[in-house]
Amino acid sequence: MTDVLRVGVAGLGTVGASVVRLLQRQAEALTARTGRRIFVAAVSARDAAKERGVDLSGAAFVDDPAALAASSDIDLFVELVGGAEGAALASVESALRSGKSVVTANKALLAAHGATLAALAEEKHVALAFEASVAGGIPIVKTLREGLAGNSIERVYGVLNGTCNYILSRMELEQLSFDQCLKEAQRLGYAEADPTFDIGGFDTAHKLSILTSLAFGTRIAPEAVDVEGIERVTLADIDAAAELGFRIKLLGVAQRTAQGIEQRVHPTMVRKTTAIAQVMGVTNAVTIDADAVHELTLVGPGAGGDATASAVVADIADIAKGIRSAPFGLPSASLRKLERTPVQRHEGGYYIRLSVPDVPGAFAAIATRMAERRISLESIMQHGRGGVSRRTGEGPVGVILITHATTEQLVREALDAIYADGTIAEQAQVIRIERE
Amino acid sequence: MTDVLRVGVAGLGTVGASVVRLLQRQAEALTARTGRRIFVAAVSARDAAKERGVDLSGAAFVDDPAALAASSDIDLFVELVGGAEGAALASVESALRSGKSVVTANKALLAAHGATLAALAEEKHVALAFEASVAGGIPIVKTLREGLAGNSIERVYGVLNGTCNYILSRMELEQLSFDQCLKEAQRLGYAEADPTFDIGGFDTAHKLSILTSLAFGTRIAPEAVDVEGIERVTLADIDAAAELGFRIKLLGVAQRTAQGIEQRVHPTMVRKTTAIAQVMGVTNAVTIDADAVHELTLVGPGAGGDATASAVVADIADIAKGIRSAPFGLPSASLRKLERTPVQRHEGGYYIRLSVPDVPGAFAAIATRMAERRISLESIMQHGRGGVSRRTGEGPVGVILITHATTEQLVREALDAIYADGTIAEQAQVIRIERE
Repeated sequence: MTDVLRVGVAGLGTVGASVVRLLQRQAEALTARTGRRIFVAAVSARDAAKERGVDLSGAAFVDDPAALAASSDIDLFVELVGGAEGAALASVESALRSGKSVVTANKALLAAHGATLAALAEEKHVALAFEASVAGGIPIVKTLREGLAGNSIERVYGVLNGTCNYILSRMELEQLSFDQCLKEAQRLGYAEADPTFDIGGFDTAHKLSILTSLAFGTRIAPEAVDVEGIERVTLADIDAAAELGFRIKLLGVAQRTAQGIEQRVHPTMVRKTTAIAQVMGVTNAVTIDADAVHELTLVGPGAGGDATASAVVADIADIAKGIRSAPFGLPSASLRKLERTPVQRHEGGYYIRLSVPDVPGAFAAIATRMAERRISLESIMQHGRGGVSRRTGEGPVGVILITHATTEQLVREALDAIYADGTIAEQAQVIRIERE
Repeated sequence: MTDVLRVGVAGLGTVGASVVRLLQRQAEALTARTGRRIFVAAVSARDAAKERGVDLSGAAFVDDPAALAASSDIDLFVELVGGAEGAALASVESALRSGKSVVTANKALLAAHGATLAALAEEKHVALAFEASVAGGIPIVKTLREGLAGNSIERVYGVLNGTCNYILSRMELEQLSFDQCLKEAQRLGYAEADPTFDIGGFDTAHKLSILTSLAFGTRIAPEAVDVEGIERVTLADIDAAAELGFRIKLLGVAQRTAQGIEQRVHPTMVRKTTAIAQVMGVTNAVTIDADAVHELTLVGPGAGGDATASAVVADIADIAKGIRSAPFGLPSASLRKLERTPVQRHEGGYYIRLSVPDVPGAFAAIATRMAERRISLESIMQHGRGGVSRRTGEGPVGVILITHATTEQLVREALDAIYADGTIAEQAQVIRIERE
C-alpha cells in the first residue's frame, strides 16, 4: 500500500460536493486513522464550470466518467452519477476492470447489477462498497456485513424512504390528506415532481433488496420484492390505527419463513411502543432481529448531502486501510438464489377497514365469512359513519377489524366471499400488521 | 494468513459459554465470510469439570489464563476473565506480547489500562478489539471507529447501564420507590447483591470513557468523568418530569465544549419525544451528534450472554479477515491527553426541586436569588405539598423550577444563597437537562 490514495469522484451533485468537502475537512483525521493521505485527484461532472462551493483547484476534470474510472491517475473511484445503466454502470465496470476499488451510493445500480459487479470486484480483489446506498448516514451495511457476523438473522425491516415517512407523519400530526402532504413534501423538496418512485414503494424495494442480500446471504433480487405504495392510505386509517395503539409506516421487510425469504414493501401497522413507530419525518430506521443479538435498531438521517457523504467517506476510509470484505458479505458465488415467496402465504395479523351498510345482519354476514376461514378477531371497532367522520350520521358504518395471525390467502378469500355476498359496496382497506 | 484461526477463550461464564456456542453454530457461515476455519482450540476457566451446556471436547484445557494466552496452540486470545488487574491484565499482556490479537469484553481493564494495551497491540501489529465492552450487542465501537470516519463528533451520549434503566423505568411505570425497584432488580438478577458499581454510575463511567476516546481521539481517562448515581432520584422527581414532558435517565455524556471534552454520568432529564427517552428496561442506547451525519441512534441489548457474545464473535471475524484498525481509531501515540473539565463550567438547563415553606415571601426570596445570577426560568410548577402528595395538605410546598441554559456554577451559587437565607430547610434536588 502506498502512502497516498488518489480518489476520483464522478458526479458532483449535492452528495458529490459534500464528499469532496468532507474529504478536505477531515483530511488530517483521515490520514491519522488510515495512515494514508486521501485526496480528490480528479472529478467528472456534466458542467465543469458550475459553482459548487467546494475547492476543486487540485483536481483534474475529466468529461467522461468511464474515462475517469479507467484513468491511472486515480486509485479509487466514487460513483455518484446515478441511474441503473448508462454512465454509472459503464464507469463502475470500467473502474473494477482496471483493478480499482469502487464506492457508490447507487441503489438502483446495485439492485440491477449488484451480483455481477460484486463478482467482478472479487475477481479483481478490489472493494465494491455501498454504505451510502441504503438509509443514508446509518451504517446499516457495515452492521449487517461485519457487526452481526456471529448471528443468524431472522428479519430485517425498516423505514427506508424519507418521503413516505414524512407524508405519513404529517398526515397524522397535522390531520391532513395524503394529497395535501404530498404537495407539501414536493414544495419542501422532499418529494420529486413525479413522486411515483418514492410513494409507490420502489425506492424502498431497491434498498430492501440490498439489505436482504446482506442479511440472508442471497443473490440480490429486487424483482422478488412484493411492492405496495402509500397512495391508498387515508387519514381514516391513520386515525383508526392511532386509536388502536398503532402507527402506519411504509416498511421494507425481509424475513426468513418456512416458505423461504419473504421480501415485501407495504404500508404497515406497527405498535406505537416500538422503536420503529417513533421514527417521524424524513428520518430512517432499520431494525434487525437475530438469534444472538435479539433486536437491534439504528435510527438516523436517510438522505441529505452530508449524511450520505458521511457513509461514502467511511467506505473510502475502510478501503484506504486495506479492508476488503466481499461486497455482500459472502463470496458472490456462494450467495443463494432467492425465489419470490408468494405473498398469499404471508402470515400475520391484519387491519381491515370495511364500509358496512347500516342494516341488520350485515355485520353478522361478514363475521361468518371470517369465521368460516378460521380467522379470529383480536378487536372490532366501529369507526363512525362514513369511515371518517362521526359527525355526518349518514352512509355506511366504518368497521375496523384487527385479526389475529392468519394468512393473506385466507383474508383474500374471506373478502372475496364478502364481496360476492354483496354485503359491502366498496373495496376493503387491508393493511398488514408487523409483529414486534 | 493461514486458512485456520485457532481461538483460545479464557473465562467460561455466561458470555464465554455463549462465545463457544456461537462459534460452533455459525462455523460454516463464518468460514464463508472470512475465508478461514475458526474454532476454539483451547479454553481456560476456574473449574474444568463444570457443566456449561457447550461441547468443549475439541478444546484443550489450560489452567492458567496467561499460559493459554502465551500458548503457540492458539492464534487469537479472547479474554472474558473480568477485572481490571490480575489474571485479566496478565493474560491480555501475555497474548499481545506473544504477537496474538486479543478480543475482550472487559471495560474495567480498558478503562484502567486501555492506552498502554493499545500501544502494545500497535507495536506488535496485532488487534485489540473490544466491541463487547460497551453496550453489549450494539456495534457502537465499530460505528465510532469506522462508520463515522468522515465526521467530527460533537457529542456522544447514551443509556449504558441496564440495571439503572430498569430501575428508573420501573419506578415510572409501576409508581414504586427506588428501594422497591432495586430489590426487584436484584431478585431478577439485573442487579448485584452490592449494586454500588451499577447504581452509583461507575459502570457507565467506564463505558463512557471508552466511547469518549473513540469519538474524540483522546487517551482514555475514566478519572476525568464526573460521576453521580441514581440513588437520590425519587418518584416525586420522576412524576414531575413526566408532567413537564421529560423522562429521567442515567446518561453517560461526552461532549466537545469550549473548555474541552466534558465527560459526565448523572441522572438526566431528557425530552420524552427523543429516541433515548423511549429506551425502557434493560435496553441500552447510544446517540451520536456529528457534523456530517447529524444524529444517529443505536438501540439494542446492553447485556446478556448471547448479545455480548455476538459482539465478541464480530470482533473475531474482523480479525480473521485481517482487519487491523488502531484499537482507539487513531494510533495511540497521537491520542490527545484529556483533562477533566470542571463540572461547575457545565452549561445547560436545570431541573430544581425545592421544599418551600408555605409562608408569604418564601418563593419571592428564591426567585430573587436566581434573578441575581441571571438564571432565567422556563417554567415553575408547584408540585403538591410535601413534594410528593397533594393529599396531606401539610408541610412545605414542592416547587419545581426548570431553568433556561445557565452554568452549574451559577446554580450552585444561587442555591448556596438560598440555603444561607434559611428560606428552605432541605437540600434541593438538582437534575441536569440534556438538550436534544
